[in-house]
Amino acid sequence: MCTGSPSSNGSEEGSSASDQQPQQEVQEAEQPSTRTTHAVVPAATSEEILAEYGSNLKLLECNSQVAELLTILRDKNTTRSDFKFYADRLIRLVIEESLNQLPYTHCDVETPTGAIYEGLKYRSGNCGVSIIRSGEAMEQGLRDCCRSIRIGKILVESDANTHEARVVYARFPDDIGSRQVLLMYPIMSTGNTVLQAVNVLREHGVPESCIILSNLFCTPMAARTVVNAFPKLKILTSELHPVAPNHFGQKYFGTD
Amino acid sequence: MCTGSPSSNGSEEGSSASDQQPQQEVQEAEQPSTRTTHAVVPAATSEEILAEYGSNLKLLECNSQVAELLTILRDKNTTRSDFKFYADRLIRLVIEESLNQLPYTHCDVETPTGAIYEGLKYRSGNCGVSIIRSGEAMEQGLRDCCRSIRIGKILVESDANTHEARVVYARFPDDIGSRQVLLMYPIMSTGNTVLQAVNVLREHGVPESCIILSNLFCTPMAARTVVNAFPKLKILTSELHPVAPNHFGQKYFGTD
Amino acid sequence: MCTGSPSSNGSEEGSSASDQQPQQEVQEAEQPSTRTTHAVVPAATSEEILAEYGSNLKLLECNSQVAELLTILRDKNTTRSDFKFYADRLIRLVIEESLNQLPYTHCDVETPTGAIYEGLKYRSGNCGVSIIRSGEAMEQGLRDCCRSIRIGKILVESDANTHEARVVYARFPDDIGSRQVLLMYPIMSTGNTVLQAVNVLREHGVPESCIILSNLFCTPMAARTVVNAFPKLKILTSELHPVAPNHFGQKYFGTD
Amino acid sequence: MCTGSPSSNGSEEGSSASDQQPQQEVQEAEQPSTRTTHAVVPAATSEEILAEYGSNLKLLECNSQVAELLTILRDKNTTRSDFKFYADRLIRLVIEESLNQLPYTHCDVETPTGAIYEGLKYRSGNCGVSIIRSGEAMEQGLRDCCRSIRIGKILVESDANTHEARVVYARFPDDIGSRQVLLMYPIMSTGNTVLQAVNVLREHGVPESCIILSNLFCTPMAARTVVNAFPKLKILTSELHPVAPNHFGQKYFGTD
Repeated sequence: MCTGSPSSNGSEEGSSASDQQPQQEVQEAEQPSTRTTHAVVPAATSEEILAEYGSNLKLLECNSQVAELLTILRDKNTTRSDFKFYADRLIRLVIEESLNQLPYTHCDVETPTGAIYEGLKYRSGNCGVSIIRSGEAMEQGLRDCCRSIRIGKILVESDANTHEARVVYARFPDDIGSRQVLLMYPIMSTGNTVLQAVNVLREHGVPESCIILSNLFCTPMAARTVVNAFPKLKILTSELHPVAPNHFGQKYFGTD
Repeated sequence: MCTGSPSSNGSEEGSSASDQQPQQEVQEAEQPSTRTTHAVVPAATSEEILAEYGSNLKLLECNSQVAELLTILRDKNTTRSDFKFYADRLIRLVIEESLNQLPYTHCDVETPTGAIYEGLKYRSGNCGVSIIRSGEAMEQGLRDCCRSIRIGKILVESDANTHEARVVYARFPDDIGSRQVLLMYPIMSTGNTVLQAVNVLREHGVPESCIILSNLFCTPMAARTVVNAFPKLKILTSELHPVAPNHFGQKYFGTD
Repeated sequence: MCTGSPSSNGSEEGSSASDQQPQQEVQEAEQPSTRTTHAVVPAATSEEILAEYGSNLKLLECNSQVAELLTILRDKNTTRSDFKFYADRLIRLVIEESLNQLPYTHCDVETPTGAIYEGLKYRSGNCGVSIIRSGEAMEQGLRDCCRSIRIGKILVESDANTHEARVVYARFPDDIGSRQVLLMYPIMSTGNTVLQAVNVLREHGVPESCIILSNLFCTPMAARTVVNAFPKLKILTSELHPVAPNHFGQKYFGTD
Repeated sequence: MCTGSPSSNGSEEGSSASDQQPQQEVQEAEQPSTRTTHAVVPAATSEEILAEYGSNLKLLECNSQVAELLTILRDKNTTRSDFKFYADRLIRLVIEESLNQLPYTHCDVETPTGAIYEGLKYRSGNCGVSIIRSGEAMEQGLRDCCRSIRIGKILVESDANTHEARVVYARFPDDIGSRQVLLMYPIMSTGNTVLQAVNVLREHGVPESCIILSNLFCTPMAARTVVNAFPKLKILTSELHPVAPNHFGQKYFGTD
């Protein structure tokens, strides 16, 4: 697991006071900071993660490849073209691991030589839902794994004055209530956008326990917010770190 | 790890007498067999693998996604189009894990907000080499992970009369001797083809310890052959099973 | 050019009365119709197109490949997986032809042997803008041609009561006013959605003459509406036909 | 059409004396040359091409996009990563146009609204064959157009002493004799390699008239050689120019 050290980052979390004023998450600027080293070690151990967030928050195993991908995405000197390429690679790994959370059954198949191979098979009836805009970066990764999976979409915006987040657009498969849903949103600073998105899914009949949130970068604060609000939802992320790379959408798509 | 049970498969290994007559591996027919269940359990444990083959043979973690991919590729009813799609997905996972074996160094980068992120970075100077024909199926997966990596190629053929394997074609980056080499070959029944390929790489100055063999399906016999011949070479595979799916190349490419 | 015969389709155009009640275009149902043959011949000639719509409406050359792609996309028996695959192929052809409308300059380059090759080069400063949702199907095609092009996004919705179309979301490169814009929207029944999108682009400082609309299927009515409203905008489409395949978005994405 | 001016290039053609000593085409060095401008104009007209090579040699329409792609591929300063990206784009265009030469039949389909759409459909029974190594660069482009098309492979080598070209490896669909064959080979300097490849296809029962050669860069000399030897074979290329970019394979794959 690649995790920032929550204990040593009290000040930074404190500085994210803007997080208490909900706003459109993709626009949140990363907090200006003095030149501080974000110590990656000592990372939280699996046991600490479990104790803090429960068993439904899972971190992608942080081997050296994943660590390199995270480094490239953090580096301000990475070109847009490289950023997209390596983000896509990390996304595929997170998607693979998310799919791994889906229910399956045992299944024997016959091989070309007539032998029986004892295998397994995922249950059908899954779909993806991306949260506009950054979540859309994860759609291709999902299609690379699930060839013709249905992919819905949600747009959450927050009122500039009241800071209230609200859903202004949603498009789902019509039978979404009977599907497992892979909710895609790569950067979570506060968790507010995800809360709204999950509420909409529930209004469309999707049980909390049938939602898997696929995420790349998550702050400890956002993790707690989502885990507390929806304890049965599963979360899969590749990094728990007090500072989220909020330039993600801007750099990936090249737009504001 | 997804492994067949070597102990319970003595007869099948014994039946692969043709393995002692080296021939072009991609043409080897899977042994005709009576309708037997290839018991996937009890799979070899990590400890057994380590004891049997040493620490340089690594198996991809066999989570339920991987198990499903293996099932689809074994199933004789899988269409060619699905076969290619799911093979490509398994290939990407094996390639990711193979890249993970490469040497890296620590590396700090500056983030867009001016903070320092303690990350890591792979050393440059890697390349891929595919063994024609089945190994070529893995080239795209490698490019999906390493954007413009150089990819060389080897063709090994065996004499129909003498059964001697020999290299009839090789194309490498000219400085291959100073690179780490990802050797790609998805199906290993006997290991003979790989032995020849590694020999050629060594003749071109590549140290054994700089070669990582990326493989999907490996028989215990082939694993032993390669490990014994080249104890410093690293092997990454997704399944150790006494029967290799020798229809792979034919089904993936649609040719004999 | 692949064009329906406008003269022989008076009744169908008449039946698209709903077109006069603007609404969210992606939801428009294709008009129920009695089993009529939509005669593809006699198609409008280049001269007729020019006379009717002016020189800024261009049709992709309708060779037999394009005709096959259009056939597959019209066929109600095409699977979702095939639909997406062949739509993506048609999209790439339309994008290539759209890019062809961009301004370029002459440019000599030196070859590896030191000779001079008299070539040409596109001016930089282009971007894409997709209209949510169906336009998003064209984003990958654009990226397949322009590696790291910036892609903005617009969401136009119409009020269920007043039928007034309005822009509820827009995300652009910040310097869009100085760029050539490839506006992506595959299905045009009435043209209303595109009118709104072009208005937003103009509000952001993009001159009408710097917009190229990339489209797959266009009704004669929509073509006239857009051409009349924005005579300097360029339109590139692959089929002019009185009945637009309004199931496109639903089938491509698998959502309502 | 993008064509060099054959009339003004007598000296360069003359200098390609090495072409008369057949050797492995991919290794042919581009002739060292004094810094000469390869005048692209006056290009041969369609009429001149027809008169010189007959109706079976077709050139991709050389619009400004194609001219830009050719320029990028000729430029010695193009990075490997860009080279591969833009080569892939040109390859897709050539493949699309090659597919366009295949036989088709008329075919009516029913649309989702119950109307009949008069379309067309390609006959099934096509396959691809790539000539190792450079031809393999075109395989992905073919798969991008024809999802699970079978792709065979030929390796032609020439004896370093006798200069005799011979086929050392061939892998085809077993029923290739009853298929249309798209033969892929991007760079033709002398045409010798293609002659050998076509001979092998004929030995496997493929009629000359069922072969379409997909090519990117062709010298006038190679065009004449192939057209004279196989007048019924169809050739599709994107540039007729006396100097072929023989660095193609080296740059695309990053190997010798």
